[in-house]
Amino acid sequence: MISTSSGLPFDDIRRLVAGFPGPDLKAREAVAARDAVLTKPAGSLGRLEELAAFVAGWQGRAKPEIARPLVAVFATNHGIADRGVSAFPQSVTKAMVANFAAGGAAINQLCTANGLGLKVFELALDHPTPDIVEADAFDEKGCAATIAYGMEAVAGGIDLLCLGEMGIANTTVAAAIYHALYGGDAGEWVGRGTGVDDEGLKRKADAVAAAVKRLGGERDPLEVLRRVGGREIAAMVGAIIAARTERVPVIVDGFVTTAAASILHALDPKATAHCLFAHCSAEAAHRAVLQKLGAKPLLDLGLRLGEGTGAALAAGIVKSALATHNGMATFEEAGVAGKEEA
Amino acid sequence: MISTSSGLPFDDIRRLVAGFPGPDLKAREAVAARDAVLTKPAGSLGRLEELAAFVAGWQGRAKPEIARPLVAVFATNHGIADRGVSAFPQSVTKAMVANFAAGGAAINQLCTANGLGLKVFELALDHPTPDIVEADAFDEKGCAATIAYGMEAVAGGIDLLCLGEMGIANTTVAAAIYHALYGGDAGEWVGRGTGVDDEGLKRKADAVAAAVKRLGGERDPLEVLRRVGGREIAAMVGAIIAARTERVPVIVDGFVTTAAASILHALDPKATAHCLFAHCSAEAAHRAVLQKLGAKPLLDLGLRLGEGTGAALAAGIVKSALATHNGMATFEEAGVAGKEEA
Repeated sequence: MISTSSGLPFDDIRRLVAGFPGPDLKAREAVAARDAVLTKPAGSLGRLEELAAFVAGWQGRAKPEIARPLVAVFATNHGIADRGVSAFPQSVTKAMVANFAAGGAAINQLCTANGLGLKVFELALDHPTPDIVEADAFDEKGCAATIAYGMEAVAGGIDLLCLGEMGIANTTVAAAIYHALYGGDAGEWVGRGTGVDDEGLKRKADAVAAAVKRLGGERDPLEVLRRVGGREIAAMVGAIIAARTERVPVIVDGFVTTAAASILHALDPKATAHCLFAHCSAEAAHRAVLQKLGAKPLLDLGLRLGEGTGAALAAGIVKSALATHNGMATFEEAGVAGKEEA
Repeated sequence: MISTSSGLPFDDIRRLVAGFPGPDLKAREAVAARDAVLTKPAGSLGRLEELAAFVAGWQGRAKPEIARPLVAVFATNHGIADRGVSAFPQSVTKAMVANFAAGGAAINQLCTANGLGLKVFELALDHPTPDIVEADAFDEKGCAATIAYGMEAVAGGIDLLCLGEMGIANTTVAAAIYHALYGGDAGEWVGRGTGVDDEGLKRKADAVAAAVKRLGGERDPLEVLRRVGGREIAAMVGAIIAARTERVPVIVDGFVTTAAASILHALDPKATAHCLFAHCSAEAAHRAVLQKLGAKPLLDLGLRLGEGTGAALAAGIVKSALATHNGMATFEEAGVAGKEEA
């Protein structure tokens, strides 16, 4: 297990990312060799075949397995919610955390339906981060401590990590991160989130522009996270880091979760190579962000709920991919003639 | 249960299709009313919300349920295989049926992973239909009997029907149906199927052109099916018909299965309204066919295996959709403030 000392400074995080292991190429080759003799035309399972190789490579085992998949949902609050950037009041974050605990949210049903564990990580719900239009979300120590806290999601021998979040106003915070990292106009990165009206959308764009203006051109990804980010996003950065070092593939959910991946990708484009992108969200700017990351999402179902819902659906697809790879008979076992044999 | 008398003539089938029931609008409204008070922003589950309403409407119940989902795989052989239009020998159809029975095929694993029943319907494997370049696949009685046989898939109280197929050379037969129904050049409708080389692809296009030329402009969908179709496609036409009258929603798999839907859609565009289209196949012409049908596939994963594999994956998504709709708490139950409440 990685040290989760709250004293971890940014330089240690940079060193950790720079030293990330690559995929296990022998495991990937073993999957490709087995795939070639399974009872189907070569390549005919498309992305399912890629997924089996992906999981094997990042798990570092020739026989990829998902026996202990976890959906980790990080919940927190944001001072910027006071600016009227969300259609829902800030109190909803805590109420939804209670709903998760009671089993009543969408993510609960999707975890049950897809055979996934669920853990909700509460991050100081009663103490929103400062309004990022006016002040930094964290000092370095606080940001690093939150990253370290997120690393705790990778525990208990999990073999697949799905990331999700809950936090009123956090599409605004994610948009600020994208605007800071990728430039353009603030308006390009904001969307309707939980369903703001036109005036709310204008308030979001203005808030994002003002928060990023305060950065004065700062583009260092960890500084962007510290100054205009939020706790759930910092914690997910930590979870993605810990997953890499612990050889656990990650499924990234939607617009807000992708912001955590974008921070790491900006540090080093290879740093998110162990991440699958579950789906393209209906939140307007997500498609553009996925393009920046070179990500090819598995699903495109018009979801824009968060909570890890898209990641949970994608995990069902990944489990199916492994079921075919591991369970299918070979041509020889089944006595099926191969291509162009008589 | 529908009569499966093998004497069912085409006129009876036309009458059955003309008299198809529509969706239960009250059931759809009940789903929409419940959806509006579930603990999520309105519309935020995107197509999952549409799927719950779709299943409710076609099942005719306010609370949609999938307790007995079935994947029905129809297997048969085709005389046209002798023209070298497939990368695999015709013997593979029977060997793969044995593989289905032994649990070794991709569809077996996907049914287990997604909690779906599986039934394989063998259609005279030792007696391929005549080569459609030279002769009609069926006489009217034989075609109608095969349609009636396919109706048997809807039995035992199933509440979701996924359709799939296995039959060496059947992408050629499906392409002939598309070329007959939609015109254009034969080459537009053929693809590499299980993986034919360039010469094989040329043989496919030539065979499709010759088979359709033999039709002399005949465009009646049942006549197209009878003259240039095949047994699995006829049986799937029957299964789709029976599902409609028995209020069972259908998930259509890939390129070949869609040919059965295209026959019914050509008879009456409303006739396939109870069908979901699982995925866009990697078989080249499938996207164009789905556009002809106005279908918006759920998945796009580069699959081109058949067997109902795409339909089984899509069934997992549909089950997840119903799990959210049926299992989520309402705002009132969870004590969560709604949009713009304090």
